[in-house]
Amino acid sequence: MPLSGRLEELDQEECLALLATVPVGRVGISSQALPAILPVNFVLHDGSILFRTVPGTKLHAAVAGAVVAFEADHVGTAPEPSWSVLVRGQAEPVTDPAERDRVDTLVPATWAFERDARHVVRIPITLISGRRVRRAT
Amino acid sequence: MPLSGRLEELDQEECLALLATVPVGRVGISSQALPAILPVNFVLHDGSILFRTVPGTKLHAAVAGAVVAFEADHVGTAPEPSWSVLVRGQAEPVTDPAERDRVDTLVPATWAFERDARHVVRIPITLISGRRVRRAT
Repeated sequence: MPLSGRLEELDQEECLALLATVPVGRVGISSQALPAILPVNFVLHDGSILFRTVPGTKLHAAVAGAVVAFEADHVGTAPEPSWSVLVRGQAEPVTDPAERDRVDTLVPATWAFERDARHVVRIPITLISGRRVRRAT
Repeated sequence: MPLSGRLEELDQEECLALLATVPVGRVGISSQALPAILPVNFVLHDGSILFRTVPGTKLHAAVAGAVVAFEADHVGTAPEPSWSVLVRGQAEPVTDPAERDRVDTLVPATWAFERDARHVVRIPITLISGRRVRRAT
């Protein structure tokens, strides 16, 4: 049954601050002509989302050069608010060796952490938006 | 740093059982030619995912007749496993008045629960897949 609640749009600064509070987000891709959503461990670094992929996987193949969606959220127990942040940007592998070395220790393992998840993908935060919901009690 | 862990593919029965344990999932859509992921409160009913939309919203516009992705997950604290289930199907509004009445009380409010979120959308579970990860301790 629909309930009442208060929905607030978040500004960019709030969105970035909230993204930094959670370890797992979800990447929205197109794979074999179908939409898919896959969870990843990520880190927010230097204006980008960074996460790992494993060569040979759906995720690895799908993100190369593609405009993807990235979402993170927290479902709060009232009166704690819930929030969701949505990022869109063109994913690209981190190939520069110096940059790879610099970020390598920052980026957590993949959600399904494979031993060889050495490939780091960056989603520059081109578009970011977010919403916070406070439930009426 | 990549860690070791054990990844298991889940069968359909396990996927459905896990979906029934969480109240929030995420719908992957295409909106204004960009991918997007939006959280929804949902219920699993009669082989479909049911959730509400609000007319005039991105989500409402994007799901009509479109093949969409739906994902739900749980990030466990080791040794509790983490899992993710992915559903794909062609979303459609529930328009039949008798069916609407039948499901109306079952379907929770939208995540950003608007008072007028009276439209119920169904994603038939055409494709379902899932993974469970047990972290090495």
